Amino acid sequence: MNKLLIVGTVAFDAIETPFGKTDKILGGAATYIGLSAANFKNVDSAIVSVIGDDFPQEYLDMLAAKSIDLSGLETVKGGKTFFWSGKYHNDMNTRDTLETQLNVLENFNPIVPEGYKDADVVMLGNLHPLVQLGVIEQMTKKPKLVVLDTMNFWMDCALKELKQVIAKVDVITINDEEARQLSGEYSLVKAARVISEMGPKYVVIKKGEHGALIFDKENVFFAPALPLEEVFDPTGAGDTFAGGFSGFIASTGDVSFDNMKKAIVHGSNLASFCVEKFGTERMENLSREEVSNRLLQFKALTQFEIELN
Amino acid sequence: MNKLLIVGTVAFDAIETPFGKTDKILGGAATYIGLSAANFKNVDSAIVSVIGDDFPQEYLDMLAAKSIDLSGLETVKGGKTFFWSGKYHNDMNTRDTLETQLNVLENFNPIVPEGYKDADVVMLGNLHPLVQLGVIEQMTKKPKLVVLDTMNFWMDCALKELKQVIAKVDVITINDEEARQLSGEYSLVKAARVISEMGPKYVVIKKGEHGALIFDKENVFFAPALPLEEVFDPTGAGDTFAGGFSGFIASTGDVSFDNMKKAIVHGSNLASFCVEKFGTERMENLSREEVSNRLLQFKALTQFEIELN
Repeated sequence: MNKLLIVGTVAFDAIETPFGKTDKILGGAATYIGLSAANFKNVDSAIVSVIGDDFPQEYLDMLAAKSIDLSGLETVKGGKTFFWSGKYHNDMNTRDTLETQLNVLENFNPIVPEGYKDADVVMLGNLHPLVQLGVIEQMTKKPKLVVLDTMNFWMDCALKELKQVIAKVDVITINDEEARQLSGEYSLVKAARVISEMGPKYVVIKKGEHGALIFDKENVFFAPALPLEEVFDPTGAGDTFAGGFSGFIASTGDVSFDNMKKAIVHGSNLASFCVEKFGTERMENLSREEVSNRLLQFKALTQFEIELN
Repeated sequence: MNKLLIVGTVAFDAIETPFGKTDKILGGAATYIGLSAANFKNVDSAIVSVIGDDFPQEYLDMLAAKSIDLSGLETVKGGKTFFWSGKYHNDMNTRDTLETQLNVLENFNPIVPEGYKDADVVMLGNLHPLVQLGVIEQMTKKPKLVVLDTMNFWMDCALKELKQVIAKVDVITINDEEARQLSGEYSLVKAARVISEMGPKYVVIKKGEHGALIFDKENVFFAPALPLEEVFDPTGAGDTFAGGFSGFIASTGDVSFDNMKKAIVHGSNLASFCVEKFGTERMENLSREEVSNRLLQFKALTQFEIELN
């Protein structure tokens, strides 16, 4: 078994989309990453995060039933769990944050469980860069792959610390607008090159409904998003992608570019389920057969034979 | 040899992008379609269009040198050639039309040359729907494939006539926003279904830098746009795509879905060259080897092996 260490928020979300709205439901980057990575064989996963004692036991039971190690999930007595609420616009590609309550995240000091200090793959979900850095520093053995997910918020308010983390990771996953902001380049080809010079060997640029690109110095590969009848709720799609990506790498233990290609296909495949229902609902109830069948749809969507003349 | 009949504008364009601006240069849908289709073997092409006597002989010579039959290109004595001028925004995905002079297009009555009334493939480039309809009606033999390109302008001001043409074609190519406008559906999967019910067996949705989708009742296939260092001028990219698509179909004579997949790959491949220089410059000087090499890049960009577990 290979080990996957997941760092990120475990949270409450309240979501409004053109299709409806929810009260406080289960959310958080580490939650989505964990649920997504749980679809791969041969991987032991653990989440490092923090919650308040307002967090329902049933959510913990559900995550534990997915064989996710929660010994690194700290519960702050009398504390309140991180809460985010947002409203999506009609195009589903943009959203407004209505409310953010950091709560227990404000003083979060991550502690990596002893058994995961030698994890094969570390997936740093979106969090303050210093928390992400704190996790890397606790590893006693150099991981095969460290993957960083981040967002524009940290570029705006903690760029120096973010660049410190970027320098220490193998893969960065960000969206197209963030890649442009971070690099100062509009062309994604140029943006990837600039970001790669900051440290990461592989740069993954997520374009939401338009798919995802992965670059290394010589190569580029693209996986589309599956065209769907309806997107109900994009929340967690990026984290689900990251969980599929890192879960597949952990499952195979292969960090070649060729395997990265497969990893972004798996990430896109799993993300295509996430958006079909509100919150984590679809990811909580996903069969191996559904995942395999949709991979076949991905192949049909993208694979062709062509003769050169 | 198979015959490809191309209908569309032959025009002057004046273009401004963040990289520079041009005076009046060669443009027009039929021009780009013809230059793109000229990259395929085993195809005889002809353009049906209209110009004024202000149109330079050197442009005609260049098109003739690409073996494009110009007997259906009417010259109006004392008339002025259609002129369009536009300015692209910084993102290159949106543009403002600065000026449109219809000139000789205003009273254009297309006449299909005798030798092309039995063309195998008819490519109806963007023009007034009644002109497009007039061409279909002159065909003495049912073509293997009729492809329609159009735009939102005709949806706004000639929707009834546009729907008449749509009912008579096998393939429609439109962009994502236009597909949404025409169908009233935001989801492209649903939009393609609604548009297909208007007549076309195949619906191609162009997403610019985000690639292109082709749908029939059972299948969907996606070809990305090649990620480029820099896009200098998007003018004509959609027409070049249409020319690559229809040129490849004419070259092979195969109208199966499997061949349509290859056709949108060829279309995307050729469009990736078009945007690298201003106007038609890149398409005028394109070697077979460059086209083949870039097809290999397309394969590397999209093809993967994946095991199902």
